[in-house]
Amino acid sequence: MATINDIADKLGVSKSTVSKGLNNASDVSSEMKRKILETAVELGYVNKRLQKKEQKLCIFIENMECKTPNHFGHDIVLGFKQMAELEGFTVDVVPVTPQFQRETPYGVFMIQQGYMASFVLGFSLLDPWMKEFRSVQIPTVLYDNYIKSNPYMASIGCDSQEGFDLAVKHLVKLGHRKIGLISGPLESYILKARYNAYLNAMAENGLEINEDYIGLGYYVAESTRTYVPKLVEQGITAILFSHDVRAISALTECNDREIRVPRDLSIIGFDDLPMTAYTVPPLTTVRQDRIALGKCGFYAMSCLLNKVPIGSILLRAPLIVRESTGPAPESPDSPAL
Amino acid sequence: MATINDIADKLGVSKSTVSKGLNNASDVSSEMKRKILETAVELGYVNKRLQKKEQKLCIFIENMECKTPNHFGHDIVLGFKQMAELEGFTVDVVPVTPQFQRETPYGVFMIQQGYMASFVLGFSLLDPWMKEFRSVQIPTVLYDNYIKSNPYMASIGCDSQEGFDLAVKHLVKLGHRKIGLISGPLESYILKARYNAYLNAMAENGLEINEDYIGLGYYVAESTRTYVPKLVEQGITAILFSHDVRAISALTECNDREIRVPRDLSIIGFDDLPMTAYTVPPLTTVRQDRIALGKCGFYAMSCLLNKVPIGSILLRAPLIVRESTGPAPESPDSPAL
Repeated sequence: MATINDIADKLGVSKSTVSKGLNNASDVSSEMKRKILETAVELGYVNKRLQKKEQKLCIFIENMECKTPNHFGHDIVLGFKQMAELEGFTVDVVPVTPQFQRETPYGVFMIQQGYMASFVLGFSLLDPWMKEFRSVQIPTVLYDNYIKSNPYMASIGCDSQEGFDLAVKHLVKLGHRKIGLISGPLESYILKARYNAYLNAMAENGLEINEDYIGLGYYVAESTRTYVPKLVEQGITAILFSHDVRAISALTECNDREIRVPRDLSIIGFDDLPMTAYTVPPLTTVRQDRIALGKCGFYAMSCLLNKVPIGSILLRAPLIVRESTGPAPESPDSPAL
Repeated sequence: MATINDIADKLGVSKSTVSKGLNNASDVSSEMKRKILETAVELGYVNKRLQKKEQKLCIFIENMECKTPNHFGHDIVLGFKQMAELEGFTVDVVPVTPQFQRETPYGVFMIQQGYMASFVLGFSLLDPWMKEFRSVQIPTVLYDNYIKSNPYMASIGCDSQEGFDLAVKHLVKLGHRKIGLISGPLESYILKARYNAYLNAMAENGLEINEDYIGLGYYVAESTRTYVPKLVEQGITAILFSHDVRAISALTECNDREIRVPRDLSIIGFDDLPMTAYTVPPLTTVRQDRIALGKCGFYAMSCLLNKVPIGSILLRAPLIVRESTGPAPESPDSPAL
């Protein structure tokens, strides 16, 4: 772990200049402050004094709300805090934007604020900090994202493969053979994982994999409107969705088109959002236990803070069977009675 | 969680009979004791009184030694104890055999001894308790084994995929294209994982996958003797091994046959056993940090004991580059100089 001396040596300046730079003193130029901070990050400097005063952790959140219990992020933040505050940590929640990330490097922000470690929610592969995560030496836990080989980064999330395995097995038991997938585009780590989980689950059950059974689109309502009828026309009797919001949108679409769920089409979501118990019909879905996810985030962070270099933790993803799945309709190809 | 009342109700006997049965009293028949224990396991009964007296955890170990620092299991047990004893738990290490497992069901043993949870090392897919693990309701952490969908079971291990990705990338940089695998038979969870990791790493790097480049055999020396020359004859210039012991055996084989390592053949192991730094030449290998594995086992157990239903934790698997890997020999097919 680097000290103020190491930074001073590397930059060829005095220890006191480095110390002043790290403490944002007014008699050090902003150019020199920038150099000092960047070198501090590069060398893996930790501001022990700041950290000792108060053990501070940070949750960065983007593309996700967490203010009320209905927001997806709420219980994740709650679960994390329940564990962390019990252990004497202070937890700040900091919403970030790509612009903020471009202006303030991750390592610099963490050192300046005296955070020991962070938990990162809702980032996409395109977020500016994602590149910095490849080499930064600060314990960081990512929800639904993964950074290769950097022992300071851990990934947590629900096991998409387990979830879709259970979903497909449930559908096969109900007589379904032609099962489709509707998902967002493959620009995110987790959507790629769900896509592969779908392919593996289909292959595992000896079911036909066909590009035409898969609909990927960014906008939820638009892609539901396009793909639900397209898949049904091809004889698909059940659809897996990458997220509940897409599955719920499909319920509306089916209602508009008089496609009866589950009599004509079975639908399975992913998340188990609170509202899925009250949709018409109530949604069969793969559960993400968000309190457990938050706690799991803290366990992962504890590992990293104690030099146990874990790469990933996967949480169980049980299938919650409600009423949007039912026996497969008789195939139009099957011999008439 | 079941109580003594639940067991009594289910069996139609009195509470005191159940209590006596659980405490191995002499005035309850052994047939009734067996019934009581089996029902206790079935219902997920926890003996709170026994557990409160002393918070006891158990490490079951098979096919693995742990007595001296050179033994593979030693540091795993040590890392686990370092964490657990700090938190006030007592840890027993119990070697088991398949016969012991056949005679004493897992759940019965745990309840009788008052263990809260266990850490299981070295089991194969054929071990009798593996079947019981599918449904038992006792927090259990498995090293290098995985049980589907049971939220009381967690798996920990090093990330074989990351390890072999790094190994193949290292070899490709050195100019190798024809890379083989020598491993044990695919009857174990972890050997299957290594096998798939090899296939994925080869595909990821656009390298040819050929059944003839793979040698699987139970006996280490025998399969080394068979497959090393067979692979070399086919123009293989580098071999990945599922474990260090196989790679070390290959070094001896190469020495006997005057195959120069790494000039004629590069060799990569998996484990980073202490002795690999002193082989001739020192072995390039994927590291399993066994102290971290033990600590990780305790973190996984803490998750399960706190109702955070994790399925798996994967530890980083860095590549330790020593001298058994080098530039690929010029291909015999390449044009003469």
